[in-house]
Amino acid sequence: MPAFPLPDPMRRALDLARAAEAAGEVPIGAVVVKDGRIIGEGENRNRRDNDPTAHAEMVAIRAAAAALGDFRLTGCDLWVTLEPCPMCAGAISHARIERLYYGAADPKGGAVEHGSRIFAQPECLHRPEHYGDIGAEESAGLLRGFFAARR
Amino acid sequence: MPAFPLPDPMRRALDLARAAEAAGEVPIGAVVVKDGRIIGEGENRNRRDNDPTAHAEMVAIRAAAAALGDFRLTGCDLWVTLEPCPMCAGAISHARIERLYYGAADPKGGAVEHGSRIFAQPECLHRPEHYGDIGAEESAGLLRGFFAARR
Repeated sequence: MPAFPLPDPMRRALDLARAAEAAGEVPIGAVVVKDGRIIGEGENRNRRDNDPTAHAEMVAIRAAAAALGDFRLTGCDLWVTLEPCPMCAGAISHARIERLYYGAADPKGGAVEHGSRIFAQPECLHRPEHYGDIGAEESAGLLRGFFAARR
Repeated sequence: MPAFPLPDPMRRALDLARAAEAAGEVPIGAVVVKDGRIIGEGENRNRRDNDPTAHAEMVAIRAAAAALGDFRLTGCDLWVTLEPCPMCAGAISHARIERLYYGAADPKGGAVEHGSRIFAQPECLHRPEHYGDIGAEESAGLLRGFFAARR
């Protein structure tokens, strides 16, 4: 158990991950926060939307940008239940996300502390501050349960 | 001048790049082809759509997946006027694009033959065949003109 209570945005992201699972999607959720308020939410929607780009982070970023009427999310933070993949890490950089908070690490698909380490590349134009292992046990448990049920 | 005529899908992608420029967007275009037919088109739409993810490749992939009613673009090829960035290379892999054909190389932002080289990462689950330098001069000329006019 963590020594501190899980922050509200990660609680909400975990709720969204559970909603994705209930809809038959990979249980991953994300929210974008600006000035302490959630301005965009997303959950994995690949199958429902027939959209290979519809990861939770992408859905939340697009919703937040639409809400702000701006293609840059300056001063915004992203909370997501799993370490972002290269696609999502690239989008986080393009969107100018200020801080990234994520749950479980993803040694196979992640691109923050694993694999292509997008933000560590010298060519990366915008690197968010990033913090992992927030609600990681709960997130990893959801993912394990989802994939175990499908094997 | 290339010794062979530019293939039709790259001609169309260059037309889309010019349409993007006319709309005040970075001039990049893309098409998805299946069985010799274009099933999805895209041009850069970041500013118009207030969407940091709306690169030409992403727009074309989403359109093609919607047209097929499938989140996997198995047996599809993507043609794009510029070397894809990490976000778009990640989406190309997620979408299971079979062959990627691109125009100009992008040493600063590209992620196929530069930077994070997404398809060369051992963790990459699907690597398309990829071919660059197709209509590269025309593509690079459009981009140079666009950025020179804005300096």
